[in-house]
Amino acid sequence: MTDGTNLRPAREDFRWESVEVLTYKAEADAGFMAITRQVLLKDAGLACELRYFEMAAGGYSSLERHLHVHGVMILRGSGHVLIGDSVRKMGPRDLVTIPPNTWHQFRATEGEPFGFLCMVNCERDRPQLPTPAEITELRKTPAIAAFLDGRPLTP
Amino acid sequence: MTDGTNLRPAREDFRWESVEVLTYKAEADAGFMAITRQVLLKDAGLACELRYFEMAAGGYSSLERHLHVHGVMILRGSGHVLIGDSVRKMGPRDLVTIPPNTWHQFRATEGEPFGFLCMVNCERDRPQLPTPAEITELRKTPAIAAFLDGRPLTP
Repeated sequence: MTDGTNLRPAREDFRWESVEVLTYKAEADAGFMAITRQVLLKDAGLACELRYFEMAAGGYSSLERHLHVHGVMILRGSGHVLIGDSVRKMGPRDLVTIPPNTWHQFRATEGEPFGFLCMVNCERDRPQLPTPAEITELRKTPAIAAFLDGRPLTP
Repeated sequence: MTDGTNLRPAREDFRWESVEVLTYKAEADAGFMAITRQVLLKDAGLACELRYFEMAAGGYSSLERHLHVHGVMILRGSGHVLIGDSVRKMGPRDLVTIPPNTWHQFRATEGEPFGFLCMVNCERDRPQLPTPAEITELRKTPAIAAFLDGRPLTP
């Protein structure tokens, strides 16, 4: 920003000049751990925002679903992602789109920071968290139960 | 895509499974060289697209302007970017927003491939190319003349 452009250089360790490192969510009971949020691209002329979320080793995002779509590119490290009824390992530059109304959660399962870019519409609905009955249903899939428990996963 | 998810793993050399490497533009007279386009994130539920543009060493994008905004993150290598009346060097993970109606061009000036993510509204106006008179006006700034000629630039 210093010379009148809106250029924000990258800094060490997946931080950026003039980009604040934020709490992941305001609600502490939303079932997340060791995850930060940075808003990288946001402008009145853009209908989407690009955010960067990063988990420390062992950290995870909320298990949630919503009607809006997430467009995701992994930027740092490897980890596992629950999307619908699949648990998949993802690494740098891998892409995934999370469809509407689909349970999803990101976990830093590989003993290293795990960070991803997330493109999302500026206008969007609020996430829903699962009920105990919905968690019971999800856990019927063994890979999902292992993922939710933080147990070792096959690739 | 193979297991029913829409995960598209990264491949070597900044390519992705199930993502086609496209011509930069259909119009060959739009003043570009040695640049490709890949559409990474595009979905009926997303109001923006995320594209990846990559120039080979010495390549460049069109010099253009339009009313829509570009949100940019450099993903590969370093190069120079003209935005308005500034020429700036950019490298991995640097961020910039290109405001409406602002001349801009990307150049792979550092003898290496230079690639960037570009987030843009799905609904947008067509780019304008500069007239000879507009190019003459731009070239009055010495750094811009050097940039347009592909001459060495200060950082």
